[in-house]
Amino acid sequence: MRVVVPYAASDPKTRLADALSPEERRAFADAMLEDVLAAVRATGREPEVLATAPVEADAPVVVDERPLTEAVNALLAGELAETATEGATDESVAVVMADLALATPEALARLFECEGDVVLAPGRGGGTNALVARHPDFRVDYHGTSYLDHRRAAREVGAAVSVVDSHRLATDVDERADLAEVLIHGSGASFEWLRGAGFELASDESRVGVVRE
Amino acid sequence: MRVVVPYAASDPKTRLADALSPEERRAFADAMLEDVLAAVRATGREPEVLATAPVEADAPVVVDERPLTEAVNALLAGELAETATEGATDESVAVVMADLALATPEALARLFECEGDVVLAPGRGGGTNALVARHPDFRVDYHGTSYLDHRRAAREVGAAVSVVDSHRLATDVDERADLAEVLIHGSGASFEWLRGAGFELASDESRVGVVRE
Repeated sequence: MRVVVPYAASDPKTRLADALSPEERRAFADAMLEDVLAAVRATGREPEVLATAPVEADAPVVVDERPLTEAVNALLAGELAETATEGATDESVAVVMADLALATPEALARLFECEGDVVLAPGRGGGTNALVARHPDFRVDYHGTSYLDHRRAAREVGAAVSVVDSHRLATDVDERADLAEVLIHGSGASFEWLRGAGFELASDESRVGVVRE
Repeated sequence: MRVVVPYAASDPKTRLADALSPEERRAFADAMLEDVLAAVRATGREPEVLATAPVEADAPVVVDERPLTEAVNALLAGELAETATEGATDESVAVVMADLALATPEALARLFECEGDVVLAPGRGGGTNALVARHPDFRVDYHGTSYLDHRRAAREVGAAVSVVDSHRLATDVDERADLAEVLIHGSGASFEWLRGAGFELASDESRVGVVRE
């Protein structure tokens, strides 16, 4: 199984602009990528980064300037050269987003080992935060409510769908409120980066948010 | 194992006031309770409702006017009479919130069957959406970041903690944005109620929300 981690190299995490400067957003995105790569590797698999421009990462990097959907579909169609050889013993492809700062080896193993032609890990708000594709005709479309679209797309090509029910994989870190999840459940480079940047948990009457010292 | 579902009978779901009238909030809260009770029952266990006032529910109801933390702790201390006899073959107690509209028998079975003196299902934002207590000295405190507080409380009484990683159990339906999760992943009475009230998914540039027709 190829395990591919897409990474937007230019101006990442724009929706964190109310909490972080452009340089900080890049550094935090890099920390999250590092955590995701480490979690994949701890499952015994070798991750590859699929980046829109050359980046430094602790893994082989495939550069594809196209938007996410097109680049992933090229990969699913077998058009992108393979950079990792270990662990790629079949035709299946896993796509794990780079901002899953809460991803653990256990959560990713549930994804990778789940049976099904298409295995989906939904994100909060209807996205698809991670998936495994084992059907040659399945293609992605990350626009809109991609989780529902991917279920439909799988059905249309006759692929059996499984769903992984994971809070950790459902939590892509996009917005200020998501930073609280990293401080509550995280432990790796992203957690350390946020703490180093002065972020702490702050309670109000309802849900918990973050403050910066 | 006793399985208790706390339910705030008066003015429920106040944070949905921007989306629903008081009568609608009550009806929607009742639909979510119905879904949770059905999901518990489908695991082969008999749920009880722990309500702040008498309510109609498809399960035995224990009335306790005290705030949530106090009422649950009275129950953990064995001070509240048992209403269900089936399935209550040991001293353990599960507490499952009534607004887990996405709870499935599979997700709840993972909680109930998980080993550990204290099993926690964290909610988004640091809450504790469901738990199993098998240690006689463990007590709850639902204020603030209760997930972290419960980990600490368990450690202090020498109870081994396990965590269930579930998006379905992490999704308590409190705010307008949470309604999208019900429309994406739900299938029971809450889903039908929302659809009947005219709610549909609506995409913007980032996450998916809801509109009302």
